Amino acid sequence: MTDTPLAPGSTIGILGGGQLGRMLALAAARLGLKCHVYDPAADCPAAQVADRHTAAPYDDAAALEAFGRAVDVITYEFENIPTAALDLLGGLAPIRPGRRALEVSQDRMTEKDFLSGLGLATAPYADIPDLAALEAALARTGTPAILKTRRFGYDGKGQVRIKDASEAAAAFAALKGAPAILEGFVDFSCEISVIGARATDGAVACFDPGENVHRDGILHTTTVPAKIPPRLRTDAVLLAGRILSALDYVGVMGVELFVTASGLVVNEIAPRVHNSGHWTQTGCAICQFEQHVRAVAGWPLGRAERHSDVEMLNLIGDDVERIAEFAADGATAIHLYGKAEARPGRKMGHVNRILLPGS
Amino acid sequence: MTDTPLAPGSTIGILGGGQLGRMLALAAARLGLKCHVYDPAADCPAAQVADRHTAAPYDDAAALEAFGRAVDVITYEFENIPTAALDLLGGLAPIRPGRRALEVSQDRMTEKDFLSGLGLATAPYADIPDLAALEAALARTGTPAILKTRRFGYDGKGQVRIKDASEAAAAFAALKGAPAILEGFVDFSCEISVIGARATDGAVACFDPGENVHRDGILHTTTVPAKIPPRLRTDAVLLAGRILSALDYVGVMGVELFVTASGLVVNEIAPRVHNSGHWTQTGCAICQFEQHVRAVAGWPLGRAERHSDVEMLNLIGDDVERIAEFAADGATAIHLYGKAEARPGRKMGHVNRILLPGS
Repeated sequence: MTDTPLAPGSTIGILGGGQLGRMLALAAARLGLKCHVYDPAADCPAAQVADRHTAAPYDDAAALEAFGRAVDVITYEFENIPTAALDLLGGLAPIRPGRRALEVSQDRMTEKDFLSGLGLATAPYADIPDLAALEAALARTGTPAILKTRRFGYDGKGQVRIKDASEAAAAFAALKGAPAILEGFVDFSCEISVIGARATDGAVACFDPGENVHRDGILHTTTVPAKIPPRLRTDAVLLAGRILSALDYVGVMGVELFVTASGLVVNEIAPRVHNSGHWTQTGCAICQFEQHVRAVAGWPLGRAERHSDVEMLNLIGDDVERIAEFAADGATAIHLYGKAEARPGRKMGHVNRILLPGS
Repeated sequence: MTDTPLAPGSTIGILGGGQLGRMLALAAARLGLKCHVYDPAADCPAAQVADRHTAAPYDDAAALEAFGRAVDVITYEFENIPTAALDLLGGLAPIRPGRRALEVSQDRMTEKDFLSGLGLATAPYADIPDLAALEAALARTGTPAILKTRRFGYDGKGQVRIKDASEAAAAFAALKGAPAILEGFVDFSCEISVIGARATDGAVACFDPGENVHRDGILHTTTVPAKIPPRLRTDAVLLAGRILSALDYVGVMGVELFVTASGLVVNEIAPRVHNSGHWTQTGCAICQFEQHVRAVAGWPLGRAERHSDVEMLNLIGDDVERIAEFAADGATAIHLYGKAEARPGRKMGHVNRILLPGS
């Protein structure tokens, strides 16, 4: 539980062994740090490249304890880690980012209250414990609006769009009694995200904002630089820095922002490396994954300067069959996640295409 | 034995598990390709990040055969692979780069004859089977000159510098009867190297020449761009392309060149990724390791454009203790090789420092 930088050869424990854990492990290996991945799936993407893998469920106290004792610091690639697991692990090794960041990001209501409390703009929102609350909230926000589960949503899952107040009952029923939040409509011109990092000494470095395009509720492309005025770029970075500092955060965070006529509105934050930051692998000397590893290892941050303009394209499901096409474009860096089966909606990889002058 | 590109999930066999094999394995993982490392050392750097590791000597026929059958293509991180191993493996999977490149680079005499045969300038040289041959050769080349073993030399090992003809007998004795070559003095202003790549379809891409500084016979720094006139840069790249094509080469090659008043003189070639190409990890979208993996996997090459100026500094022995200093410079990318013990002269890692404008 010290802020002494981890020595080369030390071990980072990663909760979750998907593609984010895999790319964290590859970055850690470059820095001479070992990784121990905890993920229930025997053939998870991160285990293929990590030094060690514990294949056990997140409620296996014995496995968690052995994992916690075997590592020097613990981080994670997803925010929905059961509280009981965190309670157990917290006594064994530092967890970075810390509990406050997880509390805030695990619950959309808590997150919105936290952001509002910092004076940051969010979509209008209301806690929805029952149908009456939903109807009252819709009367305030109007439609369209989105009803979301407070917890465990990602990539558009756990969300119902409400186009008209008459759909309230059906929408509420669709969430099957899960605690919910209503979010009002935000009239935005584009979505951007800032990938920010904060070190154990409080230093902050943010990558340039990227512009996101979603398709079927899943991130499709991130293009850097975002086509926004310099003033908004500054606003976005300052805003991310405020969030990081307020949470006494250690590690990389993704901050999704709507660009509106009246300025930036925070959509959501993710206490981890983020899909919209994958472009940094090709656009920056030190990518988001290495930046996160540096931060959680107690090392100084790298500079976040961008040396190249990049478009990141996610390869979802069958998109991965286009690899030959991407490989033939020599200015495109390919990242595949080692997943055997290309199911619809599954993130199989991504490509980072350098935007050459004139292209 | 086909030129069909390897599909994601295929396995590349790597002979040798040092830092070059490690960085090849990390690059292959990014591309969704698996690696199987063959190296006698149980804790070799590449095994820490590869999918599989065979820890067996290079003369273990059963282990070699099992390895050859388990992989889709074979490559290597060092050129001194025993011929018997290559004979056995060649029947099981394609070896890339091929046998001709290994024959040429395993023997300094064969290499010099090959280069001369292409019309390329080399140091004056002579085969030295006995002391009389050495004395006769010294009479022609004058001193200083360098007596080298024809085979198995690296990082200045297996070399004796002869400052005066009177030292001939002592120098010859120092090589203990190993077949030798005398190389005459080349009056050069600097050493550069070109890291070139050739694909299975014959396409060639060369990275910008880097300027090398050695210390105690080991590469100390490579700085890109090399401070040489544009004409010489072009010459260097064309020359590398000729060598690659003449060998019907597949993969990445390092070509070390002396810059002299009368043009470029080839020092030596290495049929593999090369220490003087490590800067590409930070200076290019697709580094030499990914380029080599693409080539041996039958994929198209990436572009070799440089987006940033870089100085690569090798961390030899105790240099690795300076990690905190390098980490504190956010424009420096750190690469450590996972070696537990920092022995003198041992390559422990390297750092790539981006040369920012004005620095």
